[in-house]
Amino acid sequence: MKHYIGASNPMREQFNPQASYVAEHFSWSFADGVGTITLNRPDRKNPLTFQSYSELRDFFYALRFATDVKAIVVTGAGGNFCSGGDVHEIIGPLTTMTMPELLEFTRMTGDLVKAMRACPQPVLGAIDGICAGAGAMMALACDMRYGTEATKTAFLFTRVGLAGADMGACALLPRMIGQGRASELLFTGRAMTAHEGLAWGFFNDLYESADLLANVQATARALADGPTFAHGMTKTMLSQEWSMTIEQAIEAEAQAQAICMQTEDFRRAYEAFAAKQKPVFQGD
Amino acid sequence: MKHYIGASNPMREQFNPQASYVAEHFSWSFADGVGTITLNRPDRKNPLTFQSYSELRDFFYALRFATDVKAIVVTGAGGNFCSGGDVHEIIGPLTTMTMPELLEFTRMTGDLVKAMRACPQPVLGAIDGICAGAGAMMALACDMRYGTEATKTAFLFTRVGLAGADMGACALLPRMIGQGRASELLFTGRAMTAHEGLAWGFFNDLYESADLLANVQATARALADGPTFAHGMTKTMLSQEWSMTIEQAIEAEAQAQAICMQTEDFRRAYEAFAAKQKPVFQGD
Amino acid sequence: MKHYIGASNPMREQFNPQASYVAEHFSWSFADGVGTITLNRPDRKNPLTFQSYSELRDFFYALRFATDVKAIVVTGAGGNFCSGGDVHEIIGPLTTMTMPELLEFTRMTGDLVKAMRACPQPVLGAIDGICAGAGAMMALACDMRYGTEATKTAFLFTRVGLAGADMGACALLPRMIGQGRASELLFTGRAMTAHEGLAWGFFNDLYESADLLANVQATARALADGPTFAHGMTKTMLSQEWSMTIEQAIEAEAQAQAICMQTEDFRRAYEAFAAKQKPVFQGD
Repeated sequence: MKHYIGASNPMREQFNPQASYVAEHFSWSFADGVGTITLNRPDRKNPLTFQSYSELRDFFYALRFATDVKAIVVTGAGGNFCSGGDVHEIIGPLTTMTMPELLEFTRMTGDLVKAMRACPQPVLGAIDGICAGAGAMMALACDMRYGTEATKTAFLFTRVGLAGADMGACALLPRMIGQGRASELLFTGRAMTAHEGLAWGFFNDLYESADLLANVQATARALADGPTFAHGMTKTMLSQEWSMTIEQAIEAEAQAQAICMQTEDFRRAYEAFAAKQKPVFQGD
Repeated sequence: MKHYIGASNPMREQFNPQASYVAEHFSWSFADGVGTITLNRPDRKNPLTFQSYSELRDFFYALRFATDVKAIVVTGAGGNFCSGGDVHEIIGPLTTMTMPELLEFTRMTGDLVKAMRACPQPVLGAIDGICAGAGAMMALACDMRYGTEATKTAFLFTRVGLAGADMGACALLPRMIGQGRASELLFTGRAMTAHEGLAWGFFNDLYESADLLANVQATARALADGPTFAHGMTKTMLSQEWSMTIEQAIEAEAQAQAICMQTEDFRRAYEAFAAKQKPVFQGD
Repeated sequence: MKHYIGASNPMREQFNPQASYVAEHFSWSFADGVGTITLNRPDRKNPLTFQSYSELRDFFYALRFATDVKAIVVTGAGGNFCSGGDVHEIIGPLTTMTMPELLEFTRMTGDLVKAMRACPQPVLGAIDGICAGAGAMMALACDMRYGTEATKTAFLFTRVGLAGADMGACALLPRMIGQGRASELLFTGRAMTAHEGLAWGFFNDLYESADLLANVQATARALADGPTFAHGMTKTMLSQEWSMTIEQAIEAEAQAQAICMQTEDFRRAYEAFAAKQKPVFQGD
C-alpha cells in the first residue's frame, strides 16, 4: 500500500506555518509540534478587529492541512486573554451597516468558532486576566481551557444591547457549565470568576500567571506526542455526536474507532506494550 | 420607517396584566416592568390544581404579547414554593380518567412548561421551602432559580407510582445538573438539598429566606432595564438550539445576532459608550 | 380485560435468570428482585474479553424480558471494577483483523452499551479500584454510579493509540460531567479521581470499600420495591429524549406519563395515600 506522507500528499496544499507563516494580526510561534497563537495588542487587552477575526478564521481553517502542527495553544499578551470585539473598530461600524453586511460579520465571527472546531488539532486556551465577549467565545471554542485566579470571563453581549446568542454561545456554554449557569451568564453579562469557572467545568485547571503558558504548552506537547490521528478523530466525534441519538452516536463511534484500529499508531502501542516499552506515536 | 409601539401594534391584542389582570388561582403584582406570580395557598404549601395549571398556562402564553412586562418572578407564599399536583384535587380524579382525558391533563401540564419557555421575558424562580413534583418542574422551567438553605426540591413522581418523565423532566433536568444526578433524582424521588442544588447548577444562588424575594426581584429589575428585545432573543435561542448541530447553532446565532444589531438598543449602547455614559435601553 | 402476567405472556420468551442462569464469563446472583453481575477475574482486575463482551451484551438484551429482575447491580471482584479490554486477548488480535472484523468488534462493544440502556431495569454500578477503558464505558452506561475513595476511572483509549470515541464515550461523558472535562479525560486518558468524579456528577455517592456493594444493593432493592413499570419508562425517556427539541420532549413525556397513569401502581399509590399507608407497588 502506498502512503502519502507530508508534502507528497496530493489531497492537501502544503501549509507549514511553523516554517513560513507570519501572521499580521497575532503572533505565531511553533516548536516541537505545538503552535502558539498569541493575541498581541496588550495596551488594549488584545481586542479583536475585522481583520484579526478574518485572519484567525482563515488560519484555523488552514490548520486542517498543517500536518506538522499537532496541537495548538491560544493565549493573549500582557496578562489578558482578549477583550472581545473592539468598541471603536467593530461596534461603531456595525451600527451603520446594512443587514447583508451585518450577517456577513456575524457569519465571520461564527466561522472562527467553526474553524477552531474543524481543525483536527486539540486547541488549548491559556487564559489570564480579561476574557470578554468574542474573546470568551474563543475560549469556549477551545477543547480545553486553563486560567489563573485573575481570569475574569464575561459574555458581555447584553451590555452592548445584543443577545447572548453570539458565535454559538447558547449551544456551547450550556454544554460546558450547565443550562442554568449559562442562562445567568448570558442574560446578565456578569463576569464568571476563575473559581466558578473551575468548579463549573469551564476551566480544566488554574495555574499561577507566571506558569500558565508553560504549563499549557507542556500539556499541548504531551498531546502532540500522542496518537494525533486518533486525537483528531476524538475531536471530530466530540462535535459530530452533539445532536445524535445515543444509538446513532454508538454506531458512529463503532465506525470511527474501527478506522483508528487500522492505524500504525494502534499497532505501535500494542507492540510497545508487549515489549514493555513506552509507545512512540507518529500520527498515522 | 413606521414603528408600531405598544398598543398601536396590530399584531398583538393588548394584554396589560400590570393594569388589569386579576388572577383567580395565584397572586399577580407588577412594578417597574417586573411581574411577580405568587402561588398562594400557603396552608397547603401552594399545590397546583386543574384550574391553576390551566390559568398559569394561559397566563404565560398571554405574556408573549405583554410588552410592558419585561421580567417575571415566580414564587410561593408562606415559606414554600409549591407542593405539586394536589393529591385530592388532581391525583384522585386522574385514577378514574380515560386515556384521552389523561393525555389532555399531561399535555396541559407540559404546556405550562412550554409557555414558560415561550414567553420572551426571563423567568426567575424565588424558591423557598418545599419545591416538589410539578412544582419542581415549574422551577426547572424558569430561566434562573434562587433558593434558600431550607429549599428542598423533589421530583416526587415515582412516589405516586409514576415515571420521572413528567412535563419534560428527563430532557430539562439532565441539561441543568448532568445526566447521572438527574437519573438519581428521577428514579428515587429523593429531595435535592439546597447545597446540592447550588453545587450542581440547579440554583444560581442561595439567599436568606427574608431576603429571597427582594433579591430575586432586584435581579429581575436589572434585567428589565436591559436590552429586553435582545434578552428575548437570548431566551429563544437557549431553547431553540437545544438539539441543533454546532454548525446549525452557529448559523442560527449569526442570524439572531444580526437582527439584534439593527435594534435601537444596540445603537444606544454604542452612543452611550462613546459619550462615556451608561446606556438607557428601551427594548426596541 | 385480560392480563398476561409473568410466564403466561406470549410476547416474551421466559427468561428467569434468578432461577436458571449460569454465566460463563461473570458471576450472577439474584435476591429479592435485584440481580448482581460481578466481573470476576480478580487476578487480572477483571478484564473484558471477546467472550465476556458478547455474553454481557446478550445477557443485558435478555434482561429486557426478565420481568422478575427489577434492578441490576454491576460490580467487580477483588476490589477493582474492570481493567477494560484485555491487552493480550483483545488488543493483540485486533491489530491483525480486517476492517469488517474490526467493525464487528466495535459494534459488539457498542451493543453492550446499547443493551445496558435498552433494558428497563435501572442499572447501578458499584465501582471500586480500577475502572478503565471499556470498563469505564460500562460504568458510564449505568444509570447511577457509586465509588470509593480508591476508584480511579480512566478512558484509556488514547494510551493504546485509539480515539476517545469508543462505545459512545464522546456522547455520554459530556452529558454526565460537561463537555470541557470530558474533552480532557478523552484526549489525555488521565485518571479521574473519585473526588473529581463525585464533584463532577460521574458518581452519585462514595462509600467505604467494605460497604460499597451492600449500599448499592440496598439502593437497588429500594428501586425494586418501587413502581418498576414507571421506572422502566423513566429509563426509556432519559435516553429517548437525548436529541429531541424541548417541545418534542414535553409531548413525548405527556404520552409516556399518560400511559403510567393507567397502571395499577398509580392507583395503589393513591389508595395508600388516602388510607395513610405506604404503597406496595407491583410493577403493573
